[in-house]
Amino acid sequence: MTKPLILISNDDGITSKGIRKLVEISKKTGEVVVVAPDSPQSGMGHAITVGDTLRLRRSDIFGDIEAYECSGTPADCVKLAKHYVLKQRKIDLIVSGVNHGSNSSISVLYSGTMSAAIEGAIEGCPSVGFSLCDYDPNAEMDHIDEYVEKIIKEALKNGIQKGIALNVNFPPIQAGSIKGIKICRQANALWEEQFDERKDPYGRRYFWMVENFVNHDSGEDNDEWALANNYVSIVPCQFDMTAHHAISRLNKDWEI
Amino acid sequence: MTKPLILISNDDGITSKGIRKLVEISKKTGEVVVVAPDSPQSGMGHAITVGDTLRLRRSDIFGDIEAYECSGTPADCVKLAKHYVLKQRKIDLIVSGVNHGSNSSISVLYSGTMSAAIEGAIEGCPSVGFSLCDYDPNAEMDHIDEYVEKIIKEALKNGIQKGIALNVNFPPIQAGSIKGIKICRQANALWEEQFDERKDPYGRRYFWMVENFVNHDSGEDNDEWALANNYVSIVPCQFDMTAHHAISRLNKDWEI
Repeated sequence: MTKPLILISNDDGITSKGIRKLVEISKKTGEVVVVAPDSPQSGMGHAITVGDTLRLRRSDIFGDIEAYECSGTPADCVKLAKHYVLKQRKIDLIVSGVNHGSNSSISVLYSGTMSAAIEGAIEGCPSVGFSLCDYDPNAEMDHIDEYVEKIIKEALKNGIQKGIALNVNFPPIQAGSIKGIKICRQANALWEEQFDERKDPYGRRYFWMVENFVNHDSGEDNDEWALANNYVSIVPCQFDMTAHHAISRLNKDWEI
Repeated sequence: MTKPLILISNDDGITSKGIRKLVEISKKTGEVVVVAPDSPQSGMGHAITVGDTLRLRRSDIFGDIEAYECSGTPADCVKLAKHYVLKQRKIDLIVSGVNHGSNSSISVLYSGTMSAAIEGAIEGCPSVGFSLCDYDPNAEMDHIDEYVEKIIKEALKNGIQKGIALNVNFPPIQAGSIKGIKICRQANALWEEQFDERKDPYGRRYFWMVENFVNHDSGEDNDEWALANNYVSIVPCQFDMTAHHAISRLNKDWEI
């Protein structure tokens, strides 16, 4: 029996610890191909490279595993993998991450990790993005192994509904032992910014964006609640941005 | 009576023709402040600048209008405008564009223009992104004036529901006279890529992404239909990516 084909990408770049974790676990059950950015792409949202060229280089970073580093964004990586590297082959699962840092609640919109998974879903492939709520590039993550493996196996066994990508976030190891997995909705939260204004050595001003996370959600069925209570959160995400409930109201209220 | 405060941004950069159009029309009804990228940011999706600095420079490109060019993405521009440039002031409307090129259907995900509008909605401001279905940077766009003005006035008069940004697309002038405005859902369509492989002068391969738009939607209530039939399309967009219908099914099917 042929092994399922698993495509791996991320946004922290091909040398990050998180992608090694996905490669190690995925190769136990699947044939693995890696196409990942050659440099960190955090905060890239669903960016693609238009009006510029892309590079793709074979990498031996994972030994025998077929791997490529790409000059583009995570979404570019998935497109190049599907339409060029793996042309004609059916991808059984796309996994992205493990991201070094949370992609829960509103962060899904800014997340390069999730853009790879959502691009996969747009292209009709079962896709999962994994993120660890710890920004340390050397973060300990062995505590997530059994959950990553379980989710990959379930995704391969049961599939994922068409048009859905899963956004999986893990509590950091410091939070103690994980209690289980919760299927959640995206919490109603946002990042509020302050800008730290400085002067460069030439007297010109520049800014650092300093973000402060604000959770407006008091529910217990959302990803922030799950993570705060030491569960793995899984949010099924779709890419229809339409606010369907707003259509009739606009038709009624607006004189157009 | 004080004029409403209108913040303008875009993704084609502060020198583009499309943003001039929004400035001209907005200043008739509002006090205008512009914060826009200093270079084109097309395809940037909802990218933000993390781990790097931002520049913001005053610009006199629009004469008396308070304007700034920013080194960051469209979402960065809105964040800097709200939390630094306009600190403490209530923004009555954010308008983004006019984009040189369509942002209908799935393109909303890749769109820098819409990321500025969606960022505005996340921050609680009524926000509208405008795009013209013509990629020519010198595209004729006087045929959209009355519609842009009407939409700005309606947004200021009726407001926009919390958490909603409007995605407005206009047919190109070549399509003939516009028939009116349709409130729509996002069409079920996608971009399918081919990669044009070339060799650089040093013998190393590189790629151009060549995109082909594929519309799978046969409905008449979506933005592609509206544009193809020469209507202005307005899709109300939200930023909850949760596929709510998929939660119960995952809970049922997955053994986790």
